Amino acid sequence: MKNLIIASTSTVFGGKYLDYLLETLAIFFSETDEIIFIPYARPGGISHDDYTAKASEAFKKINKKIVGIHTFDSPKDALLKAKGVFTGGGNTFVLVSKLYQHQLIEPLRDAIFKGLPYLGTSAGSNICGVNIRTTNDMPIVYPPSFKTLGVVPFNINPHYLDPESNSKHMGETRETRIQEFHTQNTIPVVGLREGSWLEVKGDTIKLKGELKARIFTQGKKAFEVETDTVLENL
Amino acid sequence: MKNLIIASTSTVFGGKYLDYLLETLAIFFSETDEIIFIPYARPGGISHDDYTAKASEAFKKINKKIVGIHTFDSPKDALLKAKGVFTGGGNTFVLVSKLYQHQLIEPLRDAIFKGLPYLGTSAGSNICGVNIRTTNDMPIVYPPSFKTLGVVPFNINPHYLDPESNSKHMGETRETRIQEFHTQNTIPVVGLREGSWLEVKGDTIKLKGELKARIFTQGKKAFEVETDTVLENL
Repeated sequence: MKNLIIASTSTVFGGKYLDYLLETLAIFFSETDEIIFIPYARPGGISHDDYTAKASEAFKKINKKIVGIHTFDSPKDALLKAKGVFTGGGNTFVLVSKLYQHQLIEPLRDAIFKGLPYLGTSAGSNICGVNIRTTNDMPIVYPPSFKTLGVVPFNINPHYLDPESNSKHMGETRETRIQEFHTQNTIPVVGLREGSWLEVKGDTIKLKGELKARIFTQGKKAFEVETDTVLENL
Repeated sequence: MKNLIIASTSTVFGGKYLDYLLETLAIFFSETDEIIFIPYARPGGISHDDYTAKASEAFKKINKKIVGIHTFDSPKDALLKAKGVFTGGGNTFVLVSKLYQHQLIEPLRDAIFKGLPYLGTSAGSNICGVNIRTTNDMPIVYPPSFKTLGVVPFNINPHYLDPESNSKHMGETRETRIQEFHTQNTIPVVGLREGSWLEVKGDTIKLKGELKARIFTQGKKAFEVETDTVLENL
């Protein structure tokens, strides 16, 4: 039975890394003391070691040990033996390129379908969708494919931002971009605001956190869903 | 001799489509009455015809006829015969996919090196760089490559935005994203603010418009250049 937390962000404004989620994570990862960390997205280009140290620091508060997947000779074997996985945010294109390079997409997908507890934040949440065509990140590397885990039947747009009515900037709003996505794709998109997450248990997907989420489907007007709503028919 | 205008945007805040550039364009395209328009970037997913009509309306004010490249049986032949080309903004990934699909990258590059007057705005400017790894657009389709025209020896970041100090949003600033790019790439990046453009005449590249531009090079602090500066050593 699938068991995931798919979070918009690792850090909410004014908070520390993962703080707003730690209580939830203590319960979520209650079956294991050790979590495999996938640091490949390298936010700001930091090293895998530094990023793993940052994740460790947060998880220490709930008595969990973090081990970077980059420290194993075979990242694939590490995944197969893992009792819990966390993929951190950063650059989605860098993350996906690395997952393909190490041939981890299929094993990770299989493990998640078999019940491996998986936490994603930001880029780590993007890859739970069908593909990364709704990432906000800059395409700083060219991955062999945009296809990702598809463990939920839609795409994620993390860090979802409402249009700013005062902006003098002529670039597109997030909503316009997702509408553009729907001129080329039929996959629904869940816009997750910072502080929101999806709780996936088997085939039940529930919005958690304090905020609403915005749902985009092709050819229809976008709509809001309240927290604790089960997302159906997507 | 190369002859280009590489503009950050088609439209400045409070202005109409291309208005701020029309005086410049009347001189730039003085050798031809007809300009081939590349509408492939389809902003907001509008049709090639509608987008071409929009460009026509603006160019009518300076007595230029716009013909959409999509109306030719062979877009490649249309390019070879063109006396002027304009590539409009929209989604860079859609634009690049279409250019590859019609095998237009090489012919367009060749024509530009031979002196074809080329105007790009936004996505149409992105493709003048070495690759599209510094586009701001959402990757709504997967192009066969991120490599583009390389008619300037750096990448463009159009619609360059300065960090907003009041933002409570935890997504990256534009500067952070470009710095991330430089953890993976050595190519310099020119951040063009809305209302700025690069004037390329042969190997001389000059910043035009009222604003400064921001230059990013790997391993160095970003710096500003004033309008009318010739960009050298990039």
